[in-house]
Amino acid sequence: MTAQGYVALTPDSLPDRLGGLAVLRDRVGPPEGWQVREVGDGNLNLVFVVSGDAGQVVVKQALPYVRLVGESWPLPLRRSFFEYNALIRQQARDPGSMPAVLHFDESQAIVVMEYLTPHVILRQALIQGRRVAGLGERLGRFCARTLFRGSDLSMPAAERKADLALFAGNVELCDITENLVFSDPYFAAPMNRHTPGLDGIVARLRADLSLKVAAQHLKMAFTSRAETMLHGDLHTGSIMVTGTEARVIDPEFATYGPMGFDVGMLIANFLMAHLSQPGHEVAPGDRADHQDWLLSVVETIWRTFVAEFGDLWRTERRGILYQATLYEDQGHALAAEQALDDLLGRIWQDTLGFCGIEMHRRILGLAHNADFELIADPARRAECEARALAMGRQLMLGAGTIRGIGAVTAMARRMDKEDHL
Amino acid sequence: MTAQGYVALTPDSLPDRLGGLAVLRDRVGPPEGWQVREVGDGNLNLVFVVSGDAGQVVVKQALPYVRLVGESWPLPLRRSFFEYNALIRQQARDPGSMPAVLHFDESQAIVVMEYLTPHVILRQALIQGRRVAGLGERLGRFCARTLFRGSDLSMPAAERKADLALFAGNVELCDITENLVFSDPYFAAPMNRHTPGLDGIVARLRADLSLKVAAQHLKMAFTSRAETMLHGDLHTGSIMVTGTEARVIDPEFATYGPMGFDVGMLIANFLMAHLSQPGHEVAPGDRADHQDWLLSVVETIWRTFVAEFGDLWRTERRGILYQATLYEDQGHALAAEQALDDLLGRIWQDTLGFCGIEMHRRILGLAHNADFELIADPARRAECEARALAMGRQLMLGAGTIRGIGAVTAMARRMDKEDHL
Repeated sequence: MTAQGYVALTPDSLPDRLGGLAVLRDRVGPPEGWQVREVGDGNLNLVFVVSGDAGQVVVKQALPYVRLVGESWPLPLRRSFFEYNALIRQQARDPGSMPAVLHFDESQAIVVMEYLTPHVILRQALIQGRRVAGLGERLGRFCARTLFRGSDLSMPAAERKADLALFAGNVELCDITENLVFSDPYFAAPMNRHTPGLDGIVARLRADLSLKVAAQHLKMAFTSRAETMLHGDLHTGSIMVTGTEARVIDPEFATYGPMGFDVGMLIANFLMAHLSQPGHEVAPGDRADHQDWLLSVVETIWRTFVAEFGDLWRTERRGILYQATLYEDQGHALAAEQALDDLLGRIWQDTLGFCGIEMHRRILGLAHNADFELIADPARRAECEARALAMGRQLMLGAGTIRGIGAVTAMARRMDKEDHL
Repeated sequence: MTAQGYVALTPDSLPDRLGGLAVLRDRVGPPEGWQVREVGDGNLNLVFVVSGDAGQVVVKQALPYVRLVGESWPLPLRRSFFEYNALIRQQARDPGSMPAVLHFDESQAIVVMEYLTPHVILRQALIQGRRVAGLGERLGRFCARTLFRGSDLSMPAAERKADLALFAGNVELCDITENLVFSDPYFAAPMNRHTPGLDGIVARLRADLSLKVAAQHLKMAFTSRAETMLHGDLHTGSIMVTGTEARVIDPEFATYGPMGFDVGMLIANFLMAHLSQPGHEVAPGDRADHQDWLLSVVETIWRTFVAEFGDLWRTERRGILYQATLYEDQGHALAAEQALDDLLGRIWQDTLGFCGIEMHRRILGLAHNADFELIADPARRAECEARALAMGRQLMLGAGTIRGIGAVTAMARRMDKEDHL
């Protein structure tokens, strides 16, 4: 899998190896003055911040294995290729919603990007109780624009099929999602772990046949419903923010899949942020306002998504599906609206299912959330996690009947007061 | 699109050009003694029967345009590549259900195949009132085996993704399906035609907003739900039969799509055969027994499909979906059965929708059925076609509520007595 001549960067080797790139010299200044810090805190890659007289850039390089686990879990470098291809498509579909891409080196698996400052990872901000103005609108729009514009609703059919084929090559990262999200949480898989106090509820969930059936229906939807190019890993650790801005990063899990996957995973991470807040309070109730804000973001994400998707439907529906030729041009604009409502209804149902499963896998599987992990007292952590597990189950099994985003946030408020251990 | 050096075969040039192939010399005998007939009666390709001292073979060659229309409608030669790739996969998944492939020449777009004799095209046999023993069982098994074994229920995930990418290249033939099946029938598209007496019902269908919405939902399912490798054109003109045997031919429309597409199109063509019979009777009611038999084939196709799919589910479910690790190995075999029922329920619903739309496009679109076309009296033809149109609508709009194959055949019997003009 490793490309010929690939060598991992180090802070020491980076200036020599990339100093010749005009785009870096322009952005950072002469390489003699570069300072390089390795800042990767994710699970997979090397990330360097390169600073110089003229400014800063980020250099992200894939490693031929999973950084979190080590060389025993090889992972191909070409994920960098998929990340680059996803970034340039997202840039075209929702300009400015991600860091600008400055350079790509396929054989070295390197993407050079704009350095975002003073941005921090959204998840950290949420744990600290910080707010981001306009966050729900920004993320709802990002979902609507990237999901609509990567689909047969918008793209020329041949181009969409070529992209489908391209991203079908992202096998190993899809394999991670397929196993870690959709299967491992529901049995005692070797890489799983969970907070000890959860043994009872975990055993109940893993004995819940309907839940296990629902999980696999969602897996089939993920692997077979190639509706659009997904970000594929759209959680609050894949978003960088200031107090007033948000950017989406790290689309290396990009693949064609169901529209509800990105939206569901995103909302799940806000619901988990909400349910984890009691674990971060210093005085009882001092996180109540923050919790309200988190749920207002959930509502705004969904409502903005619906509004923006509808706008795009009415103004940019130029693909092979639901063509104006068949509807508006025949005086049947109402059919287009009827179809839009149906489609949004299906995306809603998918969103709830994927939302629920994301809440499970972050507590039962390999990759946990700092929202819960940073709760020092294991008993307190277990209480919060148990609520998220109960809510995840209710979303997965209630996906066909839960009527709107207000019902979801009301459920989150109720769960927050209940004991589900 | 035309490959370098491609030259269309003629009966005269064929022995010189293919006489060097060992497989043909073995099967047919020395090329000096070959007799070549061009027999292509389909819409797209050249088909030659090559006869000699030792036997016969079929040589199928793609033309760089649609034969039915001419050079004004170019169509890439690589459809031959997709046909070949589909044939060898079907051969592995349901051995003996298609003609044996003897040779493939990609640059000349030639597939050499077993000559089926004394087989005739099933559609012709059905029009003549002839029966085929075991037909429903054969076709139901073919659907179950090819659809199950081409999916993530069975294939290694990386292999399925590679096949998904491969068949995503079959853009132009998918484009034909996308337009001619899913869109053109529902407005006055330039290539459409219909029997004149149908003007009233055609206008009503094209003004039916819910129907037009359902048609586009089906189109989205076709383009986005990459569940398995489909035959893609599984009608009674793609099946060759004797009194006791059936083989499936012509999978050049192969693509990844929803399982219900093949099953629905297949059943639709039997339902149309049924509804066209009154147009072929010599004495009133002399086709009644044949009609009963046709509907019994419909029931057998579906029931065999369900039984065989269930058998494969229980014995060959080795893909990444609904894994035994999660179900049987945890003592939860019941969850596997629950999931199977859910999945078959969804395939059923898809089947009804695709069945209905196929009944529409064969009467409203470009590519009509001999079943109806050979009814000499236009008034009689219109009566039969109107019933098929009404039934197609009911299947598309009732897909969520029609409870079983018996309800479908009962509907066909009832329609056959009604006036829908």
